[in-house]
Amino acid sequence: MSTIADASPIAPLAVALGDPAGIGPEIVAKAWEARDRDCLPPFFAVGDARSITSVWNGPLQRIHSPDEAATVFAGALPLIQMEDAGEIIPGDPNMAGARCSLDSLELAVGLTRSGAAGALVTAPVSKAQLYAIGFTYPGQTEFVAERCGISGSNAVMMLAGPTLRTVPVTTHVPLADVPGLISVDLIVAKARATERGLVRNFGIEKPRLAVAGFNPHAGEGGALGREEIDYIIPAIEILRGEGIDIVGPLAADTMFHARARAHYDAAICLYHDQALIPLKTLHFDEGVNMTLGLPIVRTAPDHGTAFEIAGRNVAEPGAMIAAIRMAGEAAGFRCQA
Amino acid sequence: MSTIADASPIAPLAVALGDPAGIGPEIVAKAWEARDRDCLPPFFAVGDARSITSVWNGPLQRIHSPDEAATVFAGALPLIQMEDAGEIIPGDPNMAGARCSLDSLELAVGLTRSGAAGALVTAPVSKAQLYAIGFTYPGQTEFVAERCGISGSNAVMMLAGPTLRTVPVTTHVPLADVPGLISVDLIVAKARATERGLVRNFGIEKPRLAVAGFNPHAGEGGALGREEIDYIIPAIEILRGEGIDIVGPLAADTMFHARARAHYDAAICLYHDQALIPLKTLHFDEGVNMTLGLPIVRTAPDHGTAFEIAGRNVAEPGAMIAAIRMAGEAAGFRCQA
Repeated sequence: MSTIADASPIAPLAVALGDPAGIGPEIVAKAWEARDRDCLPPFFAVGDARSITSVWNGPLQRIHSPDEAATVFAGALPLIQMEDAGEIIPGDPNMAGARCSLDSLELAVGLTRSGAAGALVTAPVSKAQLYAIGFTYPGQTEFVAERCGISGSNAVMMLAGPTLRTVPVTTHVPLADVPGLISVDLIVAKARATERGLVRNFGIEKPRLAVAGFNPHAGEGGALGREEIDYIIPAIEILRGEGIDIVGPLAADTMFHARARAHYDAAICLYHDQALIPLKTLHFDEGVNMTLGLPIVRTAPDHGTAFEIAGRNVAEPGAMIAAIRMAGEAAGFRCQA
Repeated sequence: MSTIADASPIAPLAVALGDPAGIGPEIVAKAWEARDRDCLPPFFAVGDARSITSVWNGPLQRIHSPDEAATVFAGALPLIQMEDAGEIIPGDPNMAGARCSLDSLELAVGLTRSGAAGALVTAPVSKAQLYAIGFTYPGQTEFVAERCGISGSNAVMMLAGPTLRTVPVTTHVPLADVPGLISVDLIVAKARATERGLVRNFGIEKPRLAVAGFNPHAGEGGALGREEIDYIIPAIEILRGEGIDIVGPLAADTMFHARARAHYDAAICLYHDQALIPLKTLHFDEGVNMTLGLPIVRTAPDHGTAFEIAGRNVAEPGAMIAAIRMAGEAAGFRCQA
């Protein structure tokens, strides 16, 4: 084992390159360029080397196992080569590329699950292309969860930026369906996973949670809706009974400004946009999606494949850099625990 | 008429003090103190002088008509005295105070409607106390509208901060009711009023509007909800047919970061929190509520009476200062038109 590896408390991170025609390869390469400036932990790419060389002229070095990454990392971007991804045209996805992205994800998950990689970071995939090759999961998160032996429904999505973390209780469903999907049990389950995730992945000894109201002004005592009374307040009482430090329901419009954010470590939100609007309004270029509730650390930049700008060398690597840094820090906290 | 009045293109603004036991009197006095630093137009308070003297030691001068305000303004806060508001205890509202706040509002609206005052600014009232004395309007906005001969339902609430303006299509209703309240006509009416308000009150020659989607990712072509297809897109087509510059439906989570905000002058949002979360996340201490669709200019600070801090000299006047400045600017644009 190399001295560099000895100096690092965590194994190199596995970064699945996502769709070869998307911006994933470009932003992973740019993240490697920023490794010193942004103090990134050693990582290696998993995917087809050509997806990187077609958009980047920097040094790339193939490795055969994760432990080679630590020595290679200082001078080149280490990569574990997957089978040929077919013809790669940035911005123009195809099914061979989708297969490559799925194979890369599968290998990267396996390496992380085995401990050979310290954490998993995933670049964006094309869901449409994955569905076309028979992928049956809603997204990468559920696939990763099941490969870890966890039901996809028990994986919890956290969006994290430098000054805000949010967890949506419901995710990609029509907003009109949300009142029928919210339950005391669901809120309790998400809040428990969030509390545990803040301890394990962020090293916060006693996490402080805040729960948003569902209705304007958190329902004003029932005058503007009953979801607070029927679901949110009972859930908070159960969680407090378990010793969790949790406040709410708070009026959603007044809980995300700077002074308010200082009072909690994560906000539990009831629906997708309630969690995503404040996060992306504040931290559009550095939002990280972290999956809680898994035996491994998994992060992803909170954006898509951006096919429309792939191959033009204009993709912003900020969110990928933040995802790698956050994954490394989380893996570190888990090592210390 | 004084030279100061001659120099100003608009009549002094009328500022109704709101509930005498709330923070209204304090923030109006503090706004007067900031008149030079923040280049505020001349204004006068309407209310009970004791509500100010009980929390502020600065110079206050009673006037009997708005035109006296311009000369007084440089050296003292001008005030038109209302009838006795009864016992005033900051933080402890009562029905006499509510009557005073309503009388003040009524006089201030009348003075503005007549043209004696250049614009109307309203400090916060206690809705609970107003309802107790038989007030039958949902809030000050609807009262002001009807005094101007406009149906309260045609008044449009715009929230405005330094870098974002939002207009909620629906306001204080349970979120579960919103899908049943949205209609093509309602969206069209709100967008038209917004466009006209941006021209008249902000001097924007050709306003650019953006409409948020209702569902996550603006519904993803119907996969995540149909409100976009059934209501929002048809409304946009009608508005475009009228020559209005409007885009959407945009994914609500990616339309409020700095680069995205540069592309529009106002965002039309479907529900309260969709409009208020980004506005207050970005501009909590300087959010202004402006009523569009009226023959007069009316603004208000976007916060409540804050009884819990009234009388402690800790209230932030930023939103009141912004409301006065914006009202003065809007009145100026109307004069030029």
